[in-house]
Amino acid sequence: MAPPPTSTISHIVSLVLKILMFVSLLVALVVLVTDSATISLTVVSTNMKIHFDDVYTYRYMLASIIFGFVYSLAQTALSLYHIIKGSPLFTGDAVFVFNFYADKVISYLLATGSAAGFGATKDLKASADALGLTDLDGYFDKGFASASLLLLAFLCAALLSIFSSYALPKIVSST
Amino acid sequence: MAPPPTSTISHIVSLVLKILMFVSLLVALVVLVTDSATISLTVVSTNMKIHFDDVYTYRYMLASIIFGFVYSLAQTALSLYHIIKGSPLFTGDAVFVFNFYADKVISYLLATGSAAGFGATKDLKASADALGLTDLDGYFDKGFASASLLLLAFLCAALLSIFSSYALPKIVSST
Repeated sequence: MAPPPTSTISHIVSLVLKILMFVSLLVALVVLVTDSATISLTVVSTNMKIHFDDVYTYRYMLASIIFGFVYSLAQTALSLYHIIKGSPLFTGDAVFVFNFYADKVISYLLATGSAAGFGATKDLKASADALGLTDLDGYFDKGFASASLLLLAFLCAALLSIFSSYALPKIVSST
Repeated sequence: MAPPPTSTISHIVSLVLKILMFVSLLVALVVLVTDSATISLTVVSTNMKIHFDDVYTYRYMLASIIFGFVYSLAQTALSLYHIIKGSPLFTGDAVFVFNFYADKVISYLLATGSAAGFGATKDLKASADALGLTDLDGYFDKGFASASLLLLAFLCAALLSIFSSYALPKIVSST
């Protein structure tokens, strides 16, 4: 068996982070897509049902959650394979380079999804409060909850991205 | 003169990215802090002047712009020193590790500032349009402009972060 590039402990830390990221994104997904509210508009005397996708930013959040979810699922599976079989499924410098860029892109995607979610929720809630639309409090609280889980997933992705940066083959050594 | 860790061309590319980041953030800052609008509220028959800091997300954008601005200024100065003097002001593995983490944090900060700006602006504008508050179009357009410049600064920071990841001393080689 070829010596692994990093120790078993770092593989397990890596796996735990991937699972935590996966679970956070799964819960974030459920919280986000089930987010809806009914608002009674006294001005026009009508009730209006709103869903998560009525906020544009929540659509972007959904996209970032789905990409992150699929990626964390694949990475968790690869980590489990590595730990169980004792050697990685894919080998070679290209794998480290791929992981480096993929971890980086996914971490930016989750960071932006979470930030956009927090920003839009905070200001929409302030606007709704100013208009007296208290019916929306629960709706925005679920938005905050989903953005918070996305932030947790981002923190896992950022740590994984640090690991994959250290695992990057140096240009000088790969030539 | 000690051999530089990377070629002169990559130093120049790096410098150009730092200057572009610096200029984008400077313009983003000016656009954001000068953003204001006067809305006439027909319901209560009054005029209301709003400034950039009335949107909570814009305050976060401002913070991310200021941090990025100061950082890009310092990094530009260090790059210029390196190119003019022929050797860096600070040397040693610790500098590469510092640059790696600092570039990473700054790039996340700019990414989240830009994303939050786009998200909040898009949804606040949609809400304002739904309420017939067309007075705010210019205000939100400036919000979009500042977020776009922040996105450009983020792209520079992300590229610089890739460079500093490759320049990272490997754990195995630094022990």
